[in-house]
Amino acid sequence: MRAVPHVVIVGGGFGGLWAARALRRAPVRVTLLDRGNHHLFQPLLYQVATAGLSAPNIAAPLRHILRRQRNATVLMGEVAGVDPDAKRLRLADGRTLDYDTLLLASGATHAYFGHDDWAPHAPGLKTLDDALEIRRRILTAFERAEAEDDEAQRAAWLTFAIVGGGPTGVELAGTLAEIARHTLRDEFRRADPRQARVLLLEAGPRVLSSFPEALSAKARAQLERLGVEVRAGVPVAAIDADGVVLGTERIDARTVLWAAGVAASPLARDLGVPLDRAGRVVVDADLRVPGHPDVYVVGDLASVRCDDRPVPGIAPAAKQMGRYVGGAIRTRLRGAEPPPFRYRDFGNLATIGRMAAVVDLHGLKLSGLVAWWFWLAAHVFFLIGFRNRVVVLIDWAQAYWSYQRSARIILGA
Amino acid sequence: MRAVPHVVIVGGGFGGLWAARALRRAPVRVTLLDRGNHHLFQPLLYQVATAGLSAPNIAAPLRHILRRQRNATVLMGEVAGVDPDAKRLRLADGRTLDYDTLLLASGATHAYFGHDDWAPHAPGLKTLDDALEIRRRILTAFERAEAEDDEAQRAAWLTFAIVGGGPTGVELAGTLAEIARHTLRDEFRRADPRQARVLLLEAGPRVLSSFPEALSAKARAQLERLGVEVRAGVPVAAIDADGVVLGTERIDARTVLWAAGVAASPLARDLGVPLDRAGRVVVDADLRVPGHPDVYVVGDLASVRCDDRPVPGIAPAAKQMGRYVGGAIRTRLRGAEPPPFRYRDFGNLATIGRMAAVVDLHGLKLSGLVAWWFWLAAHVFFLIGFRNRVVVLIDWAQAYWSYQRSARIILGA
Repeated sequence: MRAVPHVVIVGGGFGGLWAARALRRAPVRVTLLDRGNHHLFQPLLYQVATAGLSAPNIAAPLRHILRRQRNATVLMGEVAGVDPDAKRLRLADGRTLDYDTLLLASGATHAYFGHDDWAPHAPGLKTLDDALEIRRRILTAFERAEAEDDEAQRAAWLTFAIVGGGPTGVELAGTLAEIARHTLRDEFRRADPRQARVLLLEAGPRVLSSFPEALSAKARAQLERLGVEVRAGVPVAAIDADGVVLGTERIDARTVLWAAGVAASPLARDLGVPLDRAGRVVVDADLRVPGHPDVYVVGDLASVRCDDRPVPGIAPAAKQMGRYVGGAIRTRLRGAEPPPFRYRDFGNLATIGRMAAVVDLHGLKLSGLVAWWFWLAAHVFFLIGFRNRVVVLIDWAQAYWSYQRSARIILGA
Repeated sequence: MRAVPHVVIVGGGFGGLWAARALRRAPVRVTLLDRGNHHLFQPLLYQVATAGLSAPNIAAPLRHILRRQRNATVLMGEVAGVDPDAKRLRLADGRTLDYDTLLLASGATHAYFGHDDWAPHAPGLKTLDDALEIRRRILTAFERAEAEDDEAQRAAWLTFAIVGGGPTGVELAGTLAEIARHTLRDEFRRADPRQARVLLLEAGPRVLSSFPEALSAKARAQLERLGVEVRAGVPVAAIDADGVVLGTERIDARTVLWAAGVAASPLARDLGVPLDRAGRVVVDADLRVPGHPDVYVVGDLASVRCDDRPVPGIAPAAKQMGRYVGGAIRTRLRGAEPPPFRYRDFGNLATIGRMAAVVDLHGLKLSGLVAWWFWLAAHVFFLIGFRNRVVVLIDWAQAYWSYQRSARIILGA
């Protein structure tokens, strides 16, 4: 190969992919490593979990996205370790990869706050495989309820507990309530899906705590109107195969979903530098790792403050960081010094369910139907670049008018 | 429940579902049992396996299809055994189900002719999970080729052997050749997908042996034009993790797909009646099991002759049998005797790949582009009833013009 600097990017999410694209015309060769073969439009992952979209609707092969970028190579593989002194990555299959500049963009995974034994009973939602597992559990629960003769058992199959009142928990709870009340209404003969209980459990005082209090209250009201029982202010004490213990109250629920905690990808530990409480790398203002000028970190794996506030772990922030690092690498190759990273905060939005959402544009606050249309428009706009957006729109329009969901297929049973 | 006869249908494929629908207005209660939750449009399953369509595109929940049929209950469950004397089914979870009339429509599964050790190395294509497994293997093979340094290993990853030259094998081979030559062309930097070898291995003298010889020859020519190596007349002697042995020749192929043999669902054995060589139940002219007047068998599980020719194991035949049994049950409830089953043979068609197909309408024989349009129109027409046909058409149109495939996502890695 040419003797140009080798930039290795770990992770093909928003941070890694936007960095690779920003290096399009840079005099470097780029290797983008990912465990999977696709970039995932994570903001719509809950729609795959709740059978509204199919997996390929929100994913595109990384090598297809980068096919025309001749300085980029995509490799599917798992990183087992980083040696920042030797400037070398070790892959899980034993291969090694030397880099001149490294960008870690491997994101976050769910964390169970030291209760790893809860994991099999309460799957989290980070990957397409997670989404299909959650879909399988939700759809199977209704099937089991229909087959069940015992009244208490049937009620337990029709009880869904979602742990964590952040955006993912709120999306899952709102959509699940819609499925139970509308989508499945006429389809069962013994169990009545409308009797399903959907509980949203939040240990803190309110749902969507990253939003202003007034919008949190509106979100809660909208959830309750959709039929969700919101329980805030009480932590989950235990999760097992039969349900959850909320404070001291046992709730029999055969389906428990985890939307409570994330932790940075364990790769960060290899760097031997300070991590924050969530395991994220505390980076400098130019997103480099202190003491390792050739290692950048972006996205959910980076802990960075801007204007005295932490940059949030959301897709627009990851994209901005990725694009910044691409530019910073180019600038340094020219011998200049890039300005520090600045996060442009465009606002915050969360969807709740059918015709319900909250939007905080710093000044302009929206909720309900208007917010939902805003949310829909923003997400369809950002899906641009994904070939399937027409298909996604049709699926959505159909779901909207018919209350039906096009992906109610149990896979991997 | 009402004291009306209980008709239990095992299997929600074409045979079982069409029988359930035909009993819509009959004075019976119908229970439709299936292992999964969905009806599958099996003629397009190869498109899911080759990443052209997503799984939900060709499947619909059984209970959604039957939601308005108030005399029908859908149950998800696996049948472990049949006791025709007690008129009772035993389910895998221990429950039992009593019937007055039983319809077995549980279809066929792949068979390895006594070589069950070949199964892990050469998956077959019957269910959506099979299709996703095949998709995963195909896409992963190209990824592994790209990561491989050793030339021989890379060639083995780029060699695909399809065992069996019937319609499924022909579809898979043709589409795989298109993927390698067109879809992936610009996306790899080290491996060249155009160097991929796609072999179609048929033990008999010709591919598509259920078609007239002239059309078989045309199919072979079209396959070869697409880049498939057709090897007919030599049986596969062994399959292992490294490839296949064809006669005495070893072919290094890291991806082997099985499209060679099917065997009837093992349920048939419980009846204690004569089975044919493929394990199918030899039924009477009214599709009942000899000696068990309350048990009907349809679809791939039934061995039946009509006009001195065996009724083929294809979707239209299964639908006709299912509809016939629904009618026969109603007729008998009125105290009358139904006429024997008659198969209406509308012809035979098989697709080969992009713009290539063969059609045999008994008199009218088509091949190439015309046949392909005919095949497409017929399949889109029969997808009617599936909510996703617009989406399928868009995916197809896009794939046709761009050579792209919308579902190139590796799941369950």
